[in-house]
Amino acid sequence: LANAHGAESTSGPVLISARDATQSGAQAQQYLLFQQELDRARKEVEAAIQAGIQVPTPKDPGGGDTHEQHKRNYKSIYQAGLLYRITGEQQYSDWVRSLLLAYADLCPKLGPHPAAANQTAGRLFWQSLNDSVWLVHAAQGYDAVRDALSAQDRGRIDRQVFRVMAKFLSDDSPQVFNRIHNHATWANAAVGMTGYVLRDTELVDKALLGLDKTGKAGFLKQLDVLFSPDGYYAEGPYYQRYALLPFVIFAQAIQNNQPERKIFEYRDGIVLEAIRTTIQLTYDGYFFPINDAMPDKSLRTDELYQAVATAYQVTGDTALLSIAQWQGRVVLAPEGFAVARDIAAGKAQPFPFASRLLRDGPRGDQGALAILRTPSQTLVMKNTAQGMGHGHFDKLNWLLYDNGNSIVTDYGSARFLNIQAKQGGRYLRENDSWAKQTIAHNTLVVNERSHFNGDLKTAEKNAPEQLFFAGGGATQLSTAEISSAYPGVTFRRTIAQLTISGYESPLVVDVLRATSATPAQFDLPLHYSGHLINLAVPHKSNVAARPVLGRANGYQHLWVDAVGAPSSDKNFVTWLNDGRFYTYRVVPPSGAQMIFAESGANDPNFNLRREPVLIQRVTNAANVTFVSLLEPHGRHDGANETTVGSQSGVRALRYTRTADADVVQIELADGRNTILTIADAVDGDATHSVNIAGRPRSWQGHFGRFDQ
Amino acid sequence: LANAHGAESTSGPVLISARDATQSGAQAQQYLLFQQELDRARKEVEAAIQAGIQVPTPKDPGGGDTHEQHKRNYKSIYQAGLLYRITGEQQYSDWVRSLLLAYADLCPKLGPHPAAANQTAGRLFWQSLNDSVWLVHAAQGYDAVRDALSAQDRGRIDRQVFRVMAKFLSDDSPQVFNRIHNHATWANAAVGMTGYVLRDTELVDKALLGLDKTGKAGFLKQLDVLFSPDGYYAEGPYYQRYALLPFVIFAQAIQNNQPERKIFEYRDGIVLEAIRTTIQLTYDGYFFPINDAMPDKSLRTDELYQAVATAYQVTGDTALLSIAQWQGRVVLAPEGFAVARDIAAGKAQPFPFASRLLRDGPRGDQGALAILRTPSQTLVMKNTAQGMGHGHFDKLNWLLYDNGNSIVTDYGSARFLNIQAKQGGRYLRENDSWAKQTIAHNTLVVNERSHFNGDLKTAEKNAPEQLFFAGGGATQLSTAEISSAYPGVTFRRTIAQLTISGYESPLVVDVLRATSATPAQFDLPLHYSGHLINLAVPHKSNVAARPVLGRANGYQHLWVDAVGAPSSDKNFVTWLNDGRFYTYRVVPPSGAQMIFAESGANDPNFNLRREPVLIQRVTNAANVTFVSLLEPHGRHDGANETTVGSQSGVRALRYTRTADADVVQIELADGRNTILTIADAVDGDATHSVNIAGRPRSWQGHFGRFDQ
Ligand SMILES: [Zn+2]
Ligand SMILES: [Zn+2]
Repeated sequence: LANAHGAESTSGPVLISARDATQSGAQAQQYLLFQQELDRARKEVEAAIQAGIQVPTPKDPGGGDTHEQHKRNYKSIYQAGLLYRITGEQQYSDWVRSLLLAYADLCPKLGPHPAAANQTAGRLFWQSLNDSVWLVHAAQGYDAVRDALSAQDRGRIDRQVFRVMAKFLSDDSPQVFNRIHNHATWANAAVGMTGYVLRDTELVDKALLGLDKTGKAGFLKQLDVLFSPDGYYAEGPYYQRYALLPFVIFAQAIQNNQPERKIFEYRDGIVLEAIRTTIQLTYDGYFFPINDAMPDKSLRTDELYQAVATAYQVTGDTALLSIAQWQGRVVLAPEGFAVARDIAAGKAQPFPFASRLLRDGPRGDQGALAILRTPSQTLVMKNTAQGMGHGHFDKLNWLLYDNGNSIVTDYGSARFLNIQAKQGGRYLRENDSWAKQTIAHNTLVVNERSHFNGDLKTAEKNAPEQLFFAGGGATQLSTAEISSAYPGVTFRRTIAQLTISGYESPLVVDVLRATSATPAQFDLPLHYSGHLINLAVPHKSNVAARPVLGRANGYQHLWVDAVGAPSSDKNFVTWLNDGRFYTYRVVPPSGAQMIFAESGANDPNFNLRREPVLIQRVTNAANVTFVSLLEPHGRHDGANETTVGSQSGVRALRYTRTADADVVQIELADGRNTILTIADAVDGDATHSVNIAGRPRSWQGHFGRFDQ
Repeated sequence: LANAHGAESTSGPVLISARDATQSGAQAQQYLLFQQELDRARKEVEAAIQAGIQVPTPKDPGGGDTHEQHKRNYKSIYQAGLLYRITGEQQYSDWVRSLLLAYADLCPKLGPHPAAANQTAGRLFWQSLNDSVWLVHAAQGYDAVRDALSAQDRGRIDRQVFRVMAKFLSDDSPQVFNRIHNHATWANAAVGMTGYVLRDTELVDKALLGLDKTGKAGFLKQLDVLFSPDGYYAEGPYYQRYALLPFVIFAQAIQNNQPERKIFEYRDGIVLEAIRTTIQLTYDGYFFPINDAMPDKSLRTDELYQAVATAYQVTGDTALLSIAQWQGRVVLAPEGFAVARDIAAGKAQPFPFASRLLRDGPRGDQGALAILRTPSQTLVMKNTAQGMGHGHFDKLNWLLYDNGNSIVTDYGSARFLNIQAKQGGRYLRENDSWAKQTIAHNTLVVNERSHFNGDLKTAEKNAPEQLFFAGGGATQLSTAEISSAYPGVTFRRTIAQLTISGYESPLVVDVLRATSATPAQFDLPLHYSGHLINLAVPHKSNVAARPVLGRANGYQHLWVDAVGAPSSDKNFVTWLNDGRFYTYRVVPPSGAQMIFAESGANDPNFNLRREPVLIQRVTNAANVTFVSLLEPHGRHDGANETTVGSQSGVRALRYTRTADADVVQIELADGRNTILTIADAVDGDATHSVNIAGRPRSWQGHFGRFDQ
């Protein structure tokens, strides 16, 4: 193996440039962001040294003591290794040595973890995924100090820690290592990086090409398959963030040790595209919480510190620097040093957040995530494929962010990560019974059953079709359709963001049209965040006993607060969120009900958050069109005790169906009218015409917009 | 009248120094904080000028269009007046002139406001309080430009705006003007400031001494009576903040025009003491939301910008500068300029937030607000008097803040201020039926009735007794008692904050002992903020139908989620708030239940926030002692996916009653023990003894603390 850093010896660092590391240390004081990392790492490692060596026999599941201790240890090995390279202080190499010698005593003795919950038992941890993560970090820390150890210690650690762990994760775990899955990526990266450190081509080749080295599995195959051509990861943003780190860190190792592989150019630069896309999957720095996601995950996370630094090293794209500024953190490595230095030099440029259509699937033909952005608002329409076991049954779901807040929400996952009292931090039963179910989302539910009847295998085989996308201008719009979610049912949804002068944020129009082979019940839920302040829909409240909405598929978790009957003028509700008003107005289909409910029923262990939802319901119909308008307006300033625009500025919302188009008319209180026309045809630029209030209107292509 | 600013003419400014204002303008650019105010005011006034004169005939209640427009107008008159003085630009005096001439057309024609809801109808606004606020601001704006107007305009505005409004608020409103109440303070200030501006000694004297000028009413009397000797305002922090402004601004006017009155030395400097106390009534800048309070009120409010600047002008106390830094705002006046200048000069010192006992009542003998502080935690025990019509029935209630968050909460008021759809922004029906009721607080409820049976007159006559207060050191403690809240029932409560090594925040011990002449039901609610993660108390959940807890006195608003029976070891619940765990552990009295409930029942208009509460309940007992321990522990970092200390560090909580003392023993998991002893005797330093686990312990005074 040739090494880009020119490490000639068989023990010098290969994952980091010794020279760059030394230089980072020498100049650290000039760059606050890097100096802070140095100080933080010193403090943490010194605290660990104070606490002494603790390498317990594995016992506890996630969140438990031995689990957390082994996590702390890999972090400490990693940090101390880097500190040694950066500062040259021997206390740090001594600490890495002591820890790894303790592991050399432990590792060879380990069998499957006693708390293992499934077939992918780890050794140090309850699942082998954590072992891979351990090894990715430990390999980096070890690489940094390896040439400071005696040949004897080095041999012992090589054999009894790294070879043992690499063998366990590769040859002994083919069911993980040869999968196409992010757990496999972690295992590939761990084994491959160990290979570089141990100068073992065999390990590297297995990592790149699978155990049989044919390329049917392994890291390159993961790069081919796990990301869509737009850099979207099938499981969604939460796991994309997590999956990204082994891709980034192993790619960097490959680049350093086998530059001839041009890994950052592989598949049109998919690693860098995946990094940029990961950043696009955020609002105000927080990831869209679709699928099994923890809602508190932001770009302020180790994976993204590394990704930003690596991408900046490879591309020099100064837009990445503004992300690092928001993060307020850099990695403690030469690539992080460069980020800190160039931010200090004032090179940061705004990151180009934009409306984007991110195709899903390895070939980009399995639906898409449609993101519509304006300066004040971000709309996400989830027209993606299922996304494996962590996917939710939420085809054609949508989310809205406005004014810095989540307004139309996604529950995320039902889980208290790393909190032992909540089933050891694992996914809770309510993740299946509520969080994954269709009713927990903002999309159509037919006959109180979830999409694909909640069956993962069926879901995996059927993706929605992204029919049209227009990002940019005063009318941004996305149309998608699916006919496989329910037998005999097709539904198509167009969501449009209309910028209207006088409004700080766009108005959002939602047209969902469903047809069913047999009469059915159609529910369209909207999960919103805020306090109801005006419920114009005539309704009856359940004041002294709240019934439960249904019996299964998530319905059993909803308390019914009130049931209303919207009419053509009493057709809206207004809520208040962080000083801004949101009016949700509907064109009620004949006989429609509006149900006001709250999550939390059938939840004996208080596992669910309690959040409001309103549901438009039509029963016993063969087809239905739900037309809704979400209007952000006004401002309530509690501190200054001032309020403006608390009333909706919309006087009427009208909907007409023509032979081949949908027409939505918004009449404003000031007399203006905005008309959105949506042709059934999605391709080409054929001309369509409708008559609106006796006046002919024509447009080319899928949609038209007429302001008068 | 002599004027401190040396205004010789009969039209020059008397409420602001013309020379200082000019100087502020000349040097503004050097001081960012002041320049920002100047820019903001310019922008706002210029927008108002753009929008044109709008002085509508009064019609709407609070939050309505005419209400908001007249509010904007007084703000604009005030700002434009100051801008004229600071910049010398005529466009600003012209604007004030035009607005006031429009008011000169309107004011003489006005009768009682058409939307008036009670006997204190205003003219421009639905209640005369708003008219007073209007006049306080308009007088300042007018004063600043008065010498720039023609004698004719001046005469017209003097007569048709200021004399009309001053007469309405004084001679024509004796029922307001002569009251002892903050509405009267506003009226006094408005009339008195108008008096200075118009050079009318008669108006000033009435403002200072009441309509009959005997001193039985008026501003000086308000100063005698409305604040306690510790500067605590009877209605509580929310209204204290609001009440403060007329005191401060009128005192400043008196000082400028009648310095011989030495108004800032009046009653041992009560105005300045009230300002300092107002600041003490906050956590993280937010006011304790006791009584009728909006929870989003912080020190970032106009009243406090003025108070801080005035106090700094009078005292030069540089601790006030750090408050202004937190506010990020200064008043657009010379006193605000001085604050901005001295902050820029680096003179700011930390404000001395401290444990404080704030006595209530004009003579300080009507209970007290006890505040216990440590660097990470603030505990408030509400042992005050009722505090008039905005008071809640919450004697011996407590609140806890920890780690930057509200942990043991107070609902505040049920009101959506200035939101028209919510009953015009007025107090909602639920303010009486829920927010004021005892069960909505963290204090004892007997037989499901509120304190004083919810009767304000009875409540006003009976205050709790603050028996003991120790602020400072490792054990801070407050003891209070009341025997008038329920006939035949006396209850005493000690709350202590115990600093324990190894804990970031203190542990809180709560001992509440009640005796009743007849057997009764005792409920002790705890309203907490966070998500339950461990409910160790054996309980039965109401999974599919939630009953309502009771029928009246607030109980009708609680849904019952579960009912539990704590035992001596299964006696705790743990919740998570912002990454920190809180374990609430009790020594269950014999037969005690623990009820888990949520607000929101019998709330057809969605007026209530939905918040959790747990209730310890003992039925059919003549006396009861509730002993509870609240333990903040551990850290959950969702971003880094790490968790430490999620389990309580307490192994056992024990309680013993001796002949004359309560003994609480906390046994930690690491084997340490902390014992708190509380003698019945609260005075003197008599020695008390108890035997604990066979070992004699003695202490002097009300309480003892023994760590072993
Ligand atoms: Zn979801
Ligand atoms: Zn209250």
